Amino acid sequence: MIDLWLIGIGTGNPDHVTLEAQAALRDAALVLVPRKGPDKSDLADLRHTILRACDSPARVVEFDMPVRNEALPYGARVARWHDEIATIWAETIAAAQPDGPVALLVWGDPGLYDSTLRIAARLDPVPRLRVLPGITALQALTAAHAIPFNSVNGAVTVTTGRRLRAQGWPGAADTVVAMLDGACAFQHLDPDGLHIWWGAYLGMPEQVLDAGPLARAGPRIIDERAAARARHGWIMDTYLMRRVTPPGDAGD
Amino acid sequence: MIDLWLIGIGTGNPDHVTLEAQAALRDAALVLVPRKGPDKSDLADLRHTILRACDSPARVVEFDMPVRNEALPYGARVARWHDEIATIWAETIAAAQPDGPVALLVWGDPGLYDSTLRIAARLDPVPRLRVLPGITALQALTAAHAIPFNSVNGAVTVTTGRRLRAQGWPGAADTVVAMLDGACAFQHLDPDGLHIWWGAYLGMPEQVLDAGPLARAGPRIIDERAAARARHGWIMDTYLMRRVTPPGDAGD
Ligand SMILES: C[S@@+](CC[C@H](N)C(=O)[O-])C[C@H]1O[C@@H](n2cnc3c(N)ncnc32)[C@H](O)[C@@H]1O
Ligand SMILES: C[S@@+](CC[C@H](N)C(=O)[O-])C[C@H]1O[C@@H](n2cnc3c(N)ncnc32)[C@H](O)[C@@H]1O
Repeated sequence: MIDLWLIGIGTGNPDHVTLEAQAALRDAALVLVPRKGPDKSDLADLRHTILRACDSPARVVEFDMPVRNEALPYGARVARWHDEIATIWAETIAAAQPDGPVALLVWGDPGLYDSTLRIAARLDPVPRLRVLPGITALQALTAAHAIPFNSVNGAVTVTTGRRLRAQGWPGAADTVVAMLDGACAFQHLDPDGLHIWWGAYLGMPEQVLDAGPLARAGPRIIDERAAARARHGWIMDTYLMRRVTPPGDAGD
Repeated sequence: MIDLWLIGIGTGNPDHVTLEAQAALRDAALVLVPRKGPDKSDLADLRHTILRACDSPARVVEFDMPVRNEALPYGARVARWHDEIATIWAETIAAAQPDGPVALLVWGDPGLYDSTLRIAARLDPVPRLRVLPGITALQALTAAHAIPFNSVNGAVTVTTGRRLRAQGWPGAADTVVAMLDGACAFQHLDPDGLHIWWGAYLGMPEQVLDAGPLARAGPRIIDERAAARARHGWIMDTYLMRRVTPPGDAGD
């Protein structure tokens, strides 16, 4: 039975790697790294930076990511794509014949909006899985702004841009965090009483932050985002929105 | 102006410390550590273990946590307590006269259900804050169970036991994570179609895990929790619940 380690590496700052992840990369026999594509090359580079920085003696094998079949409907397309990735992993591992654990470096935390766990579940025979947590984009966001994730004893809804656009502000939530938002879903909310904290390229040298009342900061962020995206050729961003407590009612 | 660093240290496993946190503990001039109380002594010890493990040359000063005034109503009690802690920090820093950054080791991530940021905001003059993210109990939970935090493109509500009990299952959520729950709020939900993944002492040698359909696992967890708490004299636990997708409708 193969040991497969899914190692969270944080979201851009190589110093967000944990001591546990560092040790695991040293103990792994084989590391699978998706081959650097023409886009987002900074992200592929980070994996190599981390492997170098922690002096991993593991064999590193790159693999090509399959192309999604855009002719299929969304669900089937993603399922097929995951099947194909699992097949590539299996073949790559079989060819490399590692005499120890196989590791994959996962952006952020392997649990948060990431398909690695679901792809691993498709392997046959099922590997012995070990998941190593990593600093997420949400944590990079709240740390960069030095703000709490939640209001005092409050609830937080973590959601996607698509859901936020389709469903609006989730009923009882006082804090909402959006990821995977390519289209600034915040602009479709009633901004009254909402504050936004936004960050792009979090943890990286390119990091950009903005924050303010949604009514004023929202349009500014749309412009900054478009400009940053044009400048770098790609963007990853995330944001947190909270109902602002009226002054004198801080509750803490 | 004082540099105050709030350093997330993870939730029990000293190897969850990040390289950034390790370096910060080495660069700090003064580390403030709450004095070990009679309870939860394992938690106080962890801070010292981490300081030793990363060879921090910083001066370590312990301080006594003030006692909460139970006569006050909840909001005022917490506000008064935070004021008192801020005063103790200010006095301790003034007495130590550090010639560099002051650090506090925060359990998990400083943003998640933690008052350190709110206490720091009460310091006068306001310090220059730096927040270093740390692995949270939520991530320790999902990593230990090797499960994703969210369903495919799904939303997650992070909440407290008290809110879950008072408000029930949050409307649109398909995944709910509860923290700060001393009374197993899950038992007041309709368990039909819900699955629970539970963990106590996550990341520690004492770690206990359980999972299953809420209807069957719920009563079992209540018993395990009581037994573990009696055995150790204290407990910290957290859990994730998800609507189980009917077979054949996996959506991924
Ligand atoms: C496929 S998800 C992966 C999330 C990752 N597993 C984590 O733990 O943060 C990608 C989304 O995460 C967010 N993200 C990841 N890295 C980021 C970064 N460095 N800065 C801002 N947002 C980031 C963006 O919302 C992006 O659309
Ligand atoms: C005051 S909150 C602090 C959370 C912390 N800042 C974090 O990032 O996880 C304490 C709650 O976190 C959860 N928790 C913290 N450490 C834990 C552990 N090792 N195992 C299980 N739950 C834990 C429990 O729900 C506990 O009631």
